[in-house]
Amino acid sequence: MATIAVPNPLPSPTEDAENLKKAVQGWGTSEKALIEILCRRTASQRSEIAGAYAKLYNESLVDRLHAELSGDFRNAMILWATNPAERDAKLANKALKKKGDRYIWVLIEVACASTPDHLMAVREAYCSLFYSSLEEDIAFSSAFKEPLKELLVRLVTSYRYTGEYVDQVLAKFESVELYSAIKKKQPHHEDVIRIISTRNKSQLKATFQHYKQDHGKAIDEDIEHHGSSQFSAMLKVAVLCLASPEKHFAEVIRSSILGLGTDEASLTRAIVCRAEIDMKKIKEEYKIRYKTTVTRDVTGDTSGYYKDILLTLVGIEDP
Amino acid sequence: MATIAVPNPLPSPTEDAENLKKAVQGWGTSEKALIEILCRRTASQRSEIAGAYAKLYNESLVDRLHAELSGDFRNAMILWATNPAERDAKLANKALKKKGDRYIWVLIEVACASTPDHLMAVREAYCSLFYSSLEEDIAFSSAFKEPLKELLVRLVTSYRYTGEYVDQVLAKFESVELYSAIKKKQPHHEDVIRIISTRNKSQLKATFQHYKQDHGKAIDEDIEHHGSSQFSAMLKVAVLCLASPEKHFAEVIRSSILGLGTDEASLTRAIVCRAEIDMKKIKEEYKIRYKTTVTRDVTGDTSGYYKDILLTLVGIEDP
Repeated sequence: MATIAVPNPLPSPTEDAENLKKAVQGWGTSEKALIEILCRRTASQRSEIAGAYAKLYNESLVDRLHAELSGDFRNAMILWATNPAERDAKLANKALKKKGDRYIWVLIEVACASTPDHLMAVREAYCSLFYSSLEEDIAFSSAFKEPLKELLVRLVTSYRYTGEYVDQVLAKFESVELYSAIKKKQPHHEDVIRIISTRNKSQLKATFQHYKQDHGKAIDEDIEHHGSSQFSAMLKVAVLCLASPEKHFAEVIRSSILGLGTDEASLTRAIVCRAEIDMKKIKEEYKIRYKTTVTRDVTGDTSGYYKDILLTLVGIEDP
Repeated sequence: MATIAVPNPLPSPTEDAENLKKAVQGWGTSEKALIEILCRRTASQRSEIAGAYAKLYNESLVDRLHAELSGDFRNAMILWATNPAERDAKLANKALKKKGDRYIWVLIEVACASTPDHLMAVREAYCSLFYSSLEEDIAFSSAFKEPLKELLVRLVTSYRYTGEYVDQVLAKFESVELYSAIKKKQPHHEDVIRIISTRNKSQLKATFQHYKQDHGKAIDEDIEHHGSSQFSAMLKVAVLCLASPEKHFAEVIRSSILGLGTDEASLTRAIVCRAEIDMKKIKEEYKIRYKTTVTRDVTGDTSGYYKDILLTLVGIEDP
């Protein structure tokens, strides 16, 4: 599912660190070399390279990138070079300080489109970085009102079972509970919050399948159809991030490109955070849904090294 | 704070495993030797011993203890020999299947009297053992009603910041919020649940100190004074487990001994789970509060090897 083209044979972390040093030192920076090295390494390889770099040159690679680069390219490169748990903790913290649905998306993505172990690592990193817990900052924030606050806290504090086991009877039963609440315009019903925030992803996929089979419409469409509140919109995002994150991220990319000006923060986040997870699926979804490709849209809306880093992370794509 | 008397010099895990094997094989078991070895080793030492034992004899130490021992002594020894995170996951799961406040205590203890990392390890172990998450089983249980269910879910899913930093202004402010809700007989107010389930323990201790200073009564006493619901009782347990777990566990030990017959499950749990954490403080609290000692009460109410294991874990105590 990942789109990272790791070279074979792979240079050692020390070799990579040495070449990165060459790229950032002296007059001018070789952005091309930075992309060539870092964007073709997995998260664990990048972490080893950063370790080797710090040992060799007694400076932090991310700090050096920050000093040498600028603009959207810098933001993308730093996001990519940062440890993923730390990266997501920082994204969540930043999102908490802003207003608007797009920032709430970030919290839901971290909570629902991550593995339970990754979410846990994000919460650990959050405590280390910000001297408070993620759920504490959400619960205390004046930016959210109930029942949205409750939903967000429950989502970010979940640690779901990761097995494949599905109880079909339960899935059927809970699909009825969901349907009944959504139809009655009670998307915030306690059973909805309970199901969405505690059930494992395999179980939820089965529940959503029953929902569609029995009621003719996908649950995310039904949530949208029966409610126009901010809560409904965010519940829909959670449902997508849990069961088919590629649909959500295709939407994030598309909406960051459409309209006047590009929403670089969202575009960068979606591509950087998903490159190693499900970019291939996102590209397929994008093609089906928008009759164009991620590559074409990114090419049309960005330029320079920023375009280069995004396209490298998006990976080769048939036109 | 721990009461475990680890010998010096310490035998190697292999030596310990060999001596345990001698104690369980052949005719009759040497319970004394089991206590002498296992109850004088820390959790990480016991884990190494179990590893060495499995390697040497191709059998699980805990399974063998289960086969060789019986009664309350067996329960205590197995609880002690089990990895603490797994032990607490099993205790929580068992508690979920029973009815009564004493079983809810177990959930609150695991959530509030553990370190955040231990709680996380318990949740991981729970998923591995029971193919569902701890919060999922609480949220889906018909044994709890709202708002108790909400409180329990929020407590077991917390991952609190562990630093010492305290915001005194916030502590003062939140002590007023707590006081106001408790006085209005609204212990289930969303601010109460938020504060108790998200704030770090140092912060909560400061908040409870302000509460006592400004309102003359400790918050746990005030909760009891202003409410008689099950929710109030459980909120009080949470407050104690968060800020002064020794008070709660002294109460667990005392109440398991008082009355007709002994509640061995509670007595064993309190002593086994806290021996390595705060048994020294529990014994001091016990003396002050009940004008007797844990040793005297345990001696009076138990017998045989069960008494021996408990007293070994309680440790030497002045009469």
